[in-house]
Amino acid sequence: MNHASRIVNFSSGPAVLPETVLNDIQNELLNYQETGMSILEMHHRSENVSQILCEISSDLKSLLKLSDDFEILFIPGGASFQFVLIPMNLLTGHQRASYINTGRWSERAINEARRFGFVDIIYDAKAADHRFYHVPTPDQLFFPADSRYIYLTSNNTVMGTQYHVYPIAPKGIPLVADMSSDILSKEIPSDQFGIVFAGAQKNLGAAGLSIVIIRKEILSACNDTTPSVFNYKTIASYGSRYNTPPVFQLYLTHKIVKWTCQVGGIKEMSRRNLEKSALIYGILDEDSLFWNNRVDPGSRSTMNIVWDMPSEELRMLFLQLAEREGMVGLA
Amino acid sequence: MNHASRIVNFSSGPAVLPETVLNDIQNELLNYQETGMSILEMHHRSENVSQILCEISSDLKSLLKLSDDFEILFIPGGASFQFVLIPMNLLTGHQRASYINTGRWSERAINEARRFGFVDIIYDAKAADHRFYHVPTPDQLFFPADSRYIYLTSNNTVMGTQYHVYPIAPKGIPLVADMSSDILSKEIPSDQFGIVFAGAQKNLGAAGLSIVIIRKEILSACNDTTPSVFNYKTIASYGSRYNTPPVFQLYLTHKIVKWTCQVGGIKEMSRRNLEKSALIYGILDEDSLFWNNRVDPGSRSTMNIVWDMPSEELRMLFLQLAEREGMVGLA
Repeated sequence: MNHASRIVNFSSGPAVLPETVLNDIQNELLNYQETGMSILEMHHRSENVSQILCEISSDLKSLLKLSDDFEILFIPGGASFQFVLIPMNLLTGHQRASYINTGRWSERAINEARRFGFVDIIYDAKAADHRFYHVPTPDQLFFPADSRYIYLTSNNTVMGTQYHVYPIAPKGIPLVADMSSDILSKEIPSDQFGIVFAGAQKNLGAAGLSIVIIRKEILSACNDTTPSVFNYKTIASYGSRYNTPPVFQLYLTHKIVKWTCQVGGIKEMSRRNLEKSALIYGILDEDSLFWNNRVDPGSRSTMNIVWDMPSEELRMLFLQLAEREGMVGLA
Repeated sequence: MNHASRIVNFSSGPAVLPETVLNDIQNELLNYQETGMSILEMHHRSENVSQILCEISSDLKSLLKLSDDFEILFIPGGASFQFVLIPMNLLTGHQRASYINTGRWSERAINEARRFGFVDIIYDAKAADHRFYHVPTPDQLFFPADSRYIYLTSNNTVMGTQYHVYPIAPKGIPLVADMSSDILSKEIPSDQFGIVFAGAQKNLGAAGLSIVIIRKEILSACNDTTPSVFNYKTIASYGSRYNTPPVFQLYLTHKIVKWTCQVGGIKEMSRRNLEKSALIYGILDEDSLFWNNRVDPGSRSTMNIVWDMPSEELRMLFLQLAEREGMVGLA
């Protein structure tokens, strides 16, 4: 298609995919690598799909500098399913988990976790400033010794906040991070984490798949009462194919991960995000009263920049002008 | 692509997709309906996706002759997830559910259900003939009065068996059917069912999505303790968008359902399946000792025909000859 007819999509949902990836998918849609089959018809235990899974794992391990202590799981459904699977695997009725509440996604995770055990909200950004305008710094956090795990949301799409320094959990208590909206956007200190998970639709492909990066030592501690299809240990022992994974999303993630490596890896992704976000924050800061970005500068997200206009009229005008320039999803 | 290069896929996993559907997807992959976006980049709350959901529901209701007593839910993940969600929504610790065991898929469903309550296996096809070669007739079944629901697998891919007459559950006890491998292949007496579910990858599109057809009166009886993302009532009340559904699979299912309507609906699908299966069963029956199809004739599947060869050598030879003719996945 004509490049000019592709719009600029600012939607808070799925991200824009690289056009080269879309072209690839289009070209091989009826015949994946001369197999005579569409990837949509491919069996999840076929050699082609095995290779896709294997290559995503090894590329992610190299991009994120993960040691062999980690296993990568591929699970149907988005991050919201992991809001349930984390406590379902790690928490039982009499145990406690610590959650840091920084906005809509952590709130949802907290609500699901409460069905499985006791939740300690060890930091509530809303209580601190009434509006979730920041994420806590490490010195603002205290970790109860009896926590099964500590949970945070790395980047908060709705609030426009992001951790730039991650807390260090006490030895033996895994730090669990929902990185759905900033995975692959910057380097992470992987040795600080027990579990890092992400729905694929923001930075790893399309809705319908989650990637769960988990320490092998946590796998063996998963609750035996967890249903097989949701049990991290079972999923790992079957190479993410105890049941059928969403093959098309795996195929897309494979392409996105390869593309990320090709354009220069995390270093380049991080550079692009810093550059783009600095440009926009620069404009917002020039007239901060007008643009009304209220996020604490130390917690500003390089992924999602949130601002508002001084009046409803100006808001509508701005959105109209943007749409005329081919920019949608800004609201 | 050249039609001649498309192979004939007999895999027990995902089914072959109509070439016209694949062509459609290919053509609009970078620009869905002149939106300037790929369907892979579309927000799940966008108007386009709303329309897709709405049309799948109304087409399925008309194809399957469903009354307005039913709601259709779209849930990430395959049928295996529903093996968990059914008891998670309908069964609590002290309650009982009745399961009919006819092979691998019902066995898996039974194993998951046992985590949520008491399971009565009211019929075990393996106990009856040691090899799952049939499904029970209605007169072989007895339903305990305290069952929360009665569960069956409509078509058994691995065993090659299928119900041709469904049991009638006592009033007030919903009949739950896993129709993953035969939905849309024949008419069903929808008034006999409480819940019909299917993973999309066999007859409704691609792996990563389940369709759950559920009576509205069952929705209101779902356990409040069920996590929100897995709670049928919550899913229904948010129009299957409490969390992000797999948009690409919905898009594909939309096309498959439209295609099914266009080629003549369930009547035509059923005619095609009967014709094809009669042809193959005819050959198998001509020399039944050689082909070794041991399924009880009254339980024969029109979807999956299972046979074996008298020796391992003949088996290999048959598979080689088939592959030379472009037929794969027969093993």
